[in-house]
Amino acid sequence: MVPVEAHLADILAAVRPLAPVRLELEEAECGTLAEDATARCPLPSFDNSGMDGYAVYAADVAAAAPGSPVTLPVAEQIPAGDIRALTLAPGTSARIMTGALLPAGSDAVVPVEWTDGGTGQVVISKPAPDGHAIRRRGGDVAEGEVMLAAGTVLGPAQIALLAAGGHGSALVRPRPRVAVIATGNELTDPGTPLAPGRIWDSNSYMLAAAVRQAGGLAYRHRVTDDPVAVMAALDELSAAADLLVTSGGVSMGGEHDVVKAALTSGGDVTFRKVAMQPGMPQGFGVTGHARTPVFTLPGNPVSTFVSFQLFVRPAMQALQGLAPAPLPVTRAVLTDSLRSPQGRRSFMRGVLDPTLGTVTPLTGQGSHQLGALARANALIVVPERVVWIEEGKPADVMSLP
Amino acid sequence: MVPVEAHLADILAAVRPLAPVRLELEEAECGTLAEDATARCPLPSFDNSGMDGYAVYAADVAAAAPGSPVTLPVAEQIPAGDIRALTLAPGTSARIMTGALLPAGSDAVVPVEWTDGGTGQVVISKPAPDGHAIRRRGGDVAEGEVMLAAGTVLGPAQIALLAAGGHGSALVRPRPRVAVIATGNELTDPGTPLAPGRIWDSNSYMLAAAVRQAGGLAYRHRVTDDPVAVMAALDELSAAADLLVTSGGVSMGGEHDVVKAALTSGGDVTFRKVAMQPGMPQGFGVTGHARTPVFTLPGNPVSTFVSFQLFVRPAMQALQGLAPAPLPVTRAVLTDSLRSPQGRRSFMRGVLDPTLGTVTPLTGQGSHQLGALARANALIVVPERVVWIEEGKPADVMSLP
Repeated sequence: MVPVEAHLADILAAVRPLAPVRLELEEAECGTLAEDATARCPLPSFDNSGMDGYAVYAADVAAAAPGSPVTLPVAEQIPAGDIRALTLAPGTSARIMTGALLPAGSDAVVPVEWTDGGTGQVVISKPAPDGHAIRRRGGDVAEGEVMLAAGTVLGPAQIALLAAGGHGSALVRPRPRVAVIATGNELTDPGTPLAPGRIWDSNSYMLAAAVRQAGGLAYRHRVTDDPVAVMAALDELSAAADLLVTSGGVSMGGEHDVVKAALTSGGDVTFRKVAMQPGMPQGFGVTGHARTPVFTLPGNPVSTFVSFQLFVRPAMQALQGLAPAPLPVTRAVLTDSLRSPQGRRSFMRGVLDPTLGTVTPLTGQGSHQLGALARANALIVVPERVVWIEEGKPADVMSLP
Repeated sequence: MVPVEAHLADILAAVRPLAPVRLELEEAECGTLAEDATARCPLPSFDNSGMDGYAVYAADVAAAAPGSPVTLPVAEQIPAGDIRALTLAPGTSARIMTGALLPAGSDAVVPVEWTDGGTGQVVISKPAPDGHAIRRRGGDVAEGEVMLAAGTVLGPAQIALLAAGGHGSALVRPRPRVAVIATGNELTDPGTPLAPGRIWDSNSYMLAAAVRQAGGLAYRHRVTDDPVAVMAALDELSAAADLLVTSGGVSMGGEHDVVKAALTSGGDVTFRKVAMQPGMPQGFGVTGHARTPVFTLPGNPVSTFVSFQLFVRPAMQALQGLAPAPLPVTRAVLTDSLRSPQGRRSFMRGVLDPTLGTVTPLTGQGSHQLGALARANALIVVPERVVWIEEGKPADVMSLP
């Protein structure tokens, strides 16, 4: 059996970052910048007022005090967005709003709170020193400065900086498009009647949700247990998606393993046993003209879920050109003893209480038991050589997203 | 000035959870269950095989051993999804796949690994005890059992459990629809030419991205500094959105504060100074026939961002019927001294290194300085009474999403 790390390393060695594409800002959200983004102009692009107040010559108000205020005529009103190129004459003032273009000549802004708020003339009772409440051109970002380096993930603040710096679009490695394909004649649409021997499909919904949670775009599909149908779906989707993820059809039983059958002839995929539980039978490789990466995950829903978190999620990060960030692991004290198979790393469903520093293994650790998975917020990681951990001992705990 | 907690408490006291709506599973993702979800049938809904192997009578294989294997005829092939109601005769076996309906009579499954994998007959070299590799009907979830309680947020595992339990849809409090409205004559589309005195709009992009990051649906709008236009937009959007968020137009300057002007007549909104920096001028209330909650955030982009994280994000959680979960706060050692205003809680932009346990305050702490915000991964929280923290001392640090 192959160790978990070796399987992941093989996957990451094979995944190439997506080709960059220029996208409108809103489409670029959650993408990874593929080039340094420089400021198209200085930020701010003009000297402006940092407060609502009065633009003045600092020298004119230097003597202002509560007992002996200075009174100046108000020559102008300058709202934000005013594009007039105004000049302030000495001995006068201009009412100015936050963000408005500072009139030439003025070298300070007196906050409205230090004045009587007058319109024809203003009574100023406190001096504003040179430069007060003025935001200088380039004071945030200099023209041509690298605002964001290639490799930055575009969250709200980064999108805002791009916009403020004049970028209406960005060259990014986009969110990966991931086609998820559940296989099995037994699969029935949830919400429709169920024949004995059939089950409601849950894997396609789970995988699509997991893809979206991991920042990708999900295409959800389902095919029957027919290698020709499976291969046709993989062929079609390999041209439309950046990554293919199947579930089911890869167990060790042989003739009914349709995914294995399809990809053995129609792909370059390695099927192997990985030393983990759940999720032992894993496959990874490429298929189609575009040599699209494909994961063949086991069909038991808990196995599918754990495999996604351990292998598909890092591969999606690699597609975006990011260093794979594993889910965070902490140590927590077990509230109950647990048993684990020799030679396989277990990922057992548990409830982590970060405040108490404890983790409770859930009842129902079978790889088909979704009930416990849906109540879990963490996976308890038991090393390959460990078969038993006593209640009260610490264990590694991986937080679920 | 109003303390941060008091402002948030007033907001949360006014926000009502959204009315539940029944949504198809994929639309229900990230929603909050509004009723307990019970299993429509037991899970599994029938006894089935947990492995690829041979269904047998356990008594027939009890004597099997490597040196003296038991040979049984293979009477049937039972793939997953096979709906035939089969019965196994004693002294025979049925080839069975993982997840397939167990034939009546059989009480154990011999894994294929313990056999020669035969098709006409099978040579079994290890006994499977009673019940081996059988998943019993109801072994995961009993019929009628509450699978997920009202209030559960629907992530991938919960969606999967709903699907597996037969739910094609779910009654949820949906993702909040949040209309973000940037105001200001100075705002220009990023990527288009800029006149002096004008700036590229960043707040509408930032707020829309922040709404999506917080799990909402964002409608992005921009209006000019005209109270009539602002009120028209608010009126229209208050009918379409669950929450309105404006930025700008609420400073202390008076006549150009169009949002304040519009909502003073057209809403039931309280404008107040909150004891924080950035983000002092805050407004919250309701507007429109539907009495839609509305936030009026200050227009400086860093103020907008911090206000969103502190106030809008928890309100979005409350709309989903969730207990507001503040952003996580840890302690970290300052790598540099910092200054903070007396009487206001500061939220300064910093870079947290969780491994070293340090936080570095960034250069450029002005509320207009997006450059530092885009490089920050955390806000350093400085209490109201503290005006200076020395390098090497610990501080509270709020991690950004």
